[in-house]
Amino acid sequence: MPVATIEWTGELPGAARLIDQTLLPGEVRHLDLDRAEPMWEAIRALRVRGAPAIGIAAAFGLVAGVQHFTGGDRTAFAAEVARVAAYLRTSRPTAVNLFWALDRMERRRAADAAHDVGSQLRGLLAEARAIEAEDKAMCRAIGRHGLALVRDGTVALTHCNAGGLATADYGTALAPFFAAHAAGRRFRVFADETRPLLQGARLTAWELQQAGIDVTLICDGMAAAAMRERQVDLVLVGADRIAANGDTANKIGTYGVAVLARHHGVPFYVAAPTSTFDLTLANGSQIPIEERAGAEITHGFGRPTAPAGVKTWNPAFDVTPRELIAGIITEHGILERPDARRITDHFARHHAGARTAAAHHQGAAP
Amino acid sequence: MPVATIEWTGELPGAARLIDQTLLPGEVRHLDLDRAEPMWEAIRALRVRGAPAIGIAAAFGLVAGVQHFTGGDRTAFAAEVARVAAYLRTSRPTAVNLFWALDRMERRRAADAAHDVGSQLRGLLAEARAIEAEDKAMCRAIGRHGLALVRDGTVALTHCNAGGLATADYGTALAPFFAAHAAGRRFRVFADETRPLLQGARLTAWELQQAGIDVTLICDGMAAAAMRERQVDLVLVGADRIAANGDTANKIGTYGVAVLARHHGVPFYVAAPTSTFDLTLANGSQIPIEERAGAEITHGFGRPTAPAGVKTWNPAFDVTPRELIAGIITEHGILERPDARRITDHFARHHAGARTAAAHHQGAAP
Repeated sequence: MPVATIEWTGELPGAARLIDQTLLPGEVRHLDLDRAEPMWEAIRALRVRGAPAIGIAAAFGLVAGVQHFTGGDRTAFAAEVARVAAYLRTSRPTAVNLFWALDRMERRRAADAAHDVGSQLRGLLAEARAIEAEDKAMCRAIGRHGLALVRDGTVALTHCNAGGLATADYGTALAPFFAAHAAGRRFRVFADETRPLLQGARLTAWELQQAGIDVTLICDGMAAAAMRERQVDLVLVGADRIAANGDTANKIGTYGVAVLARHHGVPFYVAAPTSTFDLTLANGSQIPIEERAGAEITHGFGRPTAPAGVKTWNPAFDVTPRELIAGIITEHGILERPDARRITDHFARHHAGARTAAAHHQGAAP
Repeated sequence: MPVATIEWTGELPGAARLIDQTLLPGEVRHLDLDRAEPMWEAIRALRVRGAPAIGIAAAFGLVAGVQHFTGGDRTAFAAEVARVAAYLRTSRPTAVNLFWALDRMERRRAADAAHDVGSQLRGLLAEARAIEAEDKAMCRAIGRHGLALVRDGTVALTHCNAGGLATADYGTALAPFFAAHAAGRRFRVFADETRPLLQGARLTAWELQQAGIDVTLICDGMAAAAMRERQVDLVLVGADRIAANGDTANKIGTYGVAVLARHHGVPFYVAAPTSTFDLTLANGSQIPIEERAGAEITHGFGRPTAPAGVKTWNPAFDVTPRELIAGIITEHGILERPDARRITDHFARHHAGARTAAAHHQGAAP
């Protein structure tokens, strides 16, 4: 089992319990947050990160914020829910999942408006738990479908972190590993440390280690040697956004790993829920790539490691063209050799109406 | 001009002046060392590093150590030279160049044994300066031959550091850049930071910046994106050892860069003096690869960045197969599409007897 990133503890009143990810891997500290303000601070300060986890945190944060409401005035309760939701939206204004989850919570309150305040509050907790449960089910489904790729003796390599810490459960790219471990399979995982922010070293290595999975941490520049010298036979990564033709944006460095995998004849798989697809984008060239501050490169470890004033280039993501992708594991199955037609078919089979850009699961970065 | 890594200052008595590389890039401090003991400490503590630079430092260190000898007793002077040389050999016992340079200095003293002590001392300084001058000439020759590759508008990428800080002058992999800059050409260089020890960030970026060359520092995982998005059209790296067929060992990460270069149609060149070739090794599989402590990965920046007890794999070098190498730039010219026959020819043309394993220039690591 992966570590529980976030959960509701107690009943009402209760608290959202989450791991303070800023202290990982040095310290595992759980925070019990029973009001909105500390949850606002936790989201703001990246104590909880990863798109799905932020959505769940916001939903539980709303419950934590309104659970101390006294009296039975439904109009006043509606105003209080709106006030706390608006406040939580300001914690990380660029996180799409934050808005998606709080909108959904407010719709639930509106749907329950005829009930008494206590019922409405219980309805909000149920809704937050539903968001958590849906995320968990998505992770488990990806794990179940990806299980076929992780055999006894498999030597896998992953880049960055799309693990349980970004979700309510198994995560996406790591889900097949957790599932295979639960199934008793014996395999190894090489984890790229993933400069500049070291999500692989700090989060992936820690999650797999906690679960008892055989994980070996390497620097990003060692991936090629690992493929040749250590018989890597599977690469599995997450995704931040996938275009309609299968081109996949993920953490910087992923594209290079895909090229190396192709050179060594190693299949390269992406694990991501269908909500990661942005069918409004024809191909990867239309995916905007955020460039981040150079200090992440030059001061990434608390002290300068490069000359003052040196020029840097720090793209947060890169795009792996679909030609290099053996398959995409979604909650519905494995989409082999993705292209526009196969992706359309995948959606047609599994979705009444394909969801597009403002999807609620957008991977696990940063 | 690159920064002068090491030089003799004054006459006799004088001092070896070197940059304390442990303080780079934060601080540029020159040390004037006029006795053997501080030079022993400087070599031991990696204040001077890189095989050629260590050899030159040892030669100047010997002069610094014996320059205070008083009296005219030639036997006593010979004993003093032997004592100081033996002492300096203990500073870094695995550095081949240290032994090579001190052996050469002792041979010079023996050759001058009939002269008076003052002449012998001047002979030792002349010999140390000859070692320095030969290294400088080698660097300049590599720069001259590599100049053809660095044109106006070139966008190059390099990995690790085989620059002036490892030699007496232009270095090896960076020599063509210094030469092209001196020739007034305008070009750009991407420098991989080169985890785990960050030689690219700390040394290469600094050297190129000091020389006024347009350098951009990136993380290793960004090299693939740079090749695709930033029109890299040349890769140039150094070498630690080259087998008889052209397979080349260099800093870990080099092999991956070579694979990426091939995928993007970018020519991949190695710059190294002929002394880097080890013709006793038929191919790269015979080159031993040092595996270093995992703490370089997990604690590389003064504090832990990975979970305690995590397994690591930390090979210091990797081997790039000759098929991925467009050419090797030596002090004699560019050896295009290296293979066993072309390498034999290159040596036959330029060397009376090919030098082999215990060569004195062995690249610039760590």
